[in-house]
Amino acid sequence: LGRFTSMVLKFLENAWNLGVAEPKKVIHGVKVGLTLFLVSLFYYMKPLYDGLGGNAMWAIMTVVVVFESNVGATLYKCFNRVIGTFLAGSLALGVQWIACKSGESFEPIVIGVSVFFLASAATFSRFIPSVKTHFDYGTMIFILTFSLVSVSGYREDEVFQLGHQRLSTIAIGTSLCIIITIIVYPIWSGTELHLLIFRNLGKLADSLEGCVTEYFEEGKTVPESEKDGSKRILQGYKCVLNSKGTEESMAKLAIWEPGHDRFNFRHPWKQYLKVGAAMRNCAYCVEALNSSVNSKNQAPEHLKKHLRDACMALSSCSSYVLKELALTVENTTKSSKIDFLVGEMNFSVQELQDALKSVPNSVTEPTVLSTLEAPINEANREPKTTIPLIMEFLPLATLVSLLIEIAARIEEIANA
Amino acid sequence: LGRFTSMVLKFLENAWNLGVAEPKKVIHGVKVGLTLFLVSLFYYMKPLYDGLGGNAMWAIMTVVVVFESNVGATLYKCFNRVIGTFLAGSLALGVQWIACKSGESFEPIVIGVSVFFLASAATFSRFIPSVKTHFDYGTMIFILTFSLVSVSGYREDEVFQLGHQRLSTIAIGTSLCIIITIIVYPIWSGTELHLLIFRNLGKLADSLEGCVTEYFEEGKTVPESEKDGSKRILQGYKCVLNSKGTEESMAKLAIWEPGHDRFNFRHPWKQYLKVGAAMRNCAYCVEALNSSVNSKNQAPEHLKKHLRDACMALSSCSSYVLKELALTVENTTKSSKIDFLVGEMNFSVQELQDALKSVPNSVTEPTVLSTLEAPINEANREPKTTIPLIMEFLPLATLVSLLIEIAARIEEIANA
Repeated sequence: LGRFTSMVLKFLENAWNLGVAEPKKVIHGVKVGLTLFLVSLFYYMKPLYDGLGGNAMWAIMTVVVVFESNVGATLYKCFNRVIGTFLAGSLALGVQWIACKSGESFEPIVIGVSVFFLASAATFSRFIPSVKTHFDYGTMIFILTFSLVSVSGYREDEVFQLGHQRLSTIAIGTSLCIIITIIVYPIWSGTELHLLIFRNLGKLADSLEGCVTEYFEEGKTVPESEKDGSKRILQGYKCVLNSKGTEESMAKLAIWEPGHDRFNFRHPWKQYLKVGAAMRNCAYCVEALNSSVNSKNQAPEHLKKHLRDACMALSSCSSYVLKELALTVENTTKSSKIDFLVGEMNFSVQELQDALKSVPNSVTEPTVLSTLEAPINEANREPKTTIPLIMEFLPLATLVSLLIEIAARIEEIANA
Repeated sequence: LGRFTSMVLKFLENAWNLGVAEPKKVIHGVKVGLTLFLVSLFYYMKPLYDGLGGNAMWAIMTVVVVFESNVGATLYKCFNRVIGTFLAGSLALGVQWIACKSGESFEPIVIGVSVFFLASAATFSRFIPSVKTHFDYGTMIFILTFSLVSVSGYREDEVFQLGHQRLSTIAIGTSLCIIITIIVYPIWSGTELHLLIFRNLGKLADSLEGCVTEYFEEGKTVPESEKDGSKRILQGYKCVLNSKGTEESMAKLAIWEPGHDRFNFRHPWKQYLKVGAAMRNCAYCVEALNSSVNSKNQAPEHLKKHLRDACMALSSCSSYVLKELALTVENTTKSSKIDFLVGEMNFSVQELQDALKSVPNSVTEPTVLSTLEAPINEANREPKTTIPLIMEFLPLATLVSLLIEIAARIEEIANA
């Protein structure tokens, strides 16, 4: 029992922490409670109850099922539910009419067979990509309503009234949901997507810069408190790697949202996905860079020193470009500085290449000398250690090309 | 109108192709149709109808909502639905009892307030990670049932009977679903996960080997027909990059499944996630490797020749290890060859390093010579071109270390 209470306490503590960290989620909970409370008022008020009868529970069900934490998802579900119910209801009435005409003994057979075929076809259609992205929920509601209406039509005579009541209760439920979700502290999935991309660009910039800095300043002692923070920064690119699914679902939902904040109705949300994909490409490189930085074989000090300035300059330039891109995304306008910064970045790529050109001499000279002097010992070390150094350069070079690619893509958005 | 019909035709064609490509999905559709047909029989048979009354529609609803394409998801939803309904029903009856005691005028207030608070709390709890992974659906059903039962209790006197009927219809629906989903051509999400990991390992091996081979044999002319195939192989690692979400949801659902095929009930599905993550790490490296292979600056021929054999040997060794790992995963037993192959792979890493050691001399000699002979022209080219060569090595080296890491992890599974 003691273990159980401690589990419960821990669970409550987790919940509390989550609530403090993300008040949005608490607000969403309260919104759902409020909407349900409002809907249940229909039940208590006699005139409303008489109009709808026991079917008022459909309104409650609609609210519970349809209310999602962001506006896009709620609108998507409301739209799908209404359309699905309406289509299925009309179709079911049609089937009912045919079944009635075909005589009493055939009636259940006609209905049963039609339910079987339509349900099979509709379930299969949920796998078709174009249906899946935009009408998955609607198709489910279609199956549900169709089977309910056509099957209960066999026993009850007022199918038409049943369908009508169902539609009107659903209309009440959905409209309440839409009103509450938009008016009371709305959470737009478009805005969330926008912020996610903006934050991820920043994180990527920080972890790129942090990674290179860490590599070249390894010798310095860092206080423990800062170390944790810098580790967090270094891991920032992992957020970029893992955010694919979130981005896609948000972009899918964002297209349902009307104009809000600074975004119009037909804001090019798909562009965000492109930026996201380019960012992930970039993050793969940072991942490779990071693993080479953490690898055991380190370049000798004099080599590090030689390339240090050029590498640092390049990484800070790249990270400036990323940060500027983040600003570009935030303001949804093309920044005038971006071309200049990209140019500067390309210039530092050139500089790094110049620095590399002068490396072979400084590297190979000691090697040649050492192979003469101490063939076994030195020759063993030197060639190995040249590798991580140039390894170091690869991801940066790849990064730079990717950055330029991103820059080109961002321009599209800025123009959109 | 012509455009509309062509759209419809194209849609049907897509659907047909999908059905031919993945008959599983058609079968799933038929299964849903069959289950719905069976459930609707309850409506047609008089004795059954009399027992359950109009509430029989809850059985239909349960089937539509709960039936998923794989066994794990269906079991998860069934379990959640039954538990959620039961808990919420009992709680609602308790609240009802309190509300009755508190007098007629307070009744709606007590019910309304309790609905508001419980719905808010339950909705919020859906965001807590531990609830989200295993009980997301159950919590929704909890809110739904609680509001329905407690609200309708205000108007109807036989709340107890209502709750009882709802539970029994849901029991009928879920048991039918479970029986059909397991007996008729079951699709186990555990098996799917298993196959996914197995296939992805193979794809990774192919694209790693293909990538390195392409790099070193670029000069050769390849017939167009083969080119498409090899391009597809090269892109194989992208599947690995993008399968994170699928893997996670499958592993989540697989834990609900009873023993099937060769897997026991408590098969360590989480190990698959670890393998998946290690594979993704590996795929990041292949991605970097691929981009460096496709980069414009190529190493000079004599250098390529020098490292060719060692690189090819390493990549084929690594890919053998990956393929052997795929077999290991397939048979869920530790292969005796794996240690030997990893050893061989490490040996070829060593060989490649030896080959690199002899490079600096062969590289720098021409550079030194050329800088003397044609300082501007040659010196410009040579240092640049040494980069992609060694760039080439980095991902391989990283890969190898990752491979060893995977090997270690696979051993855990094999032992499990």
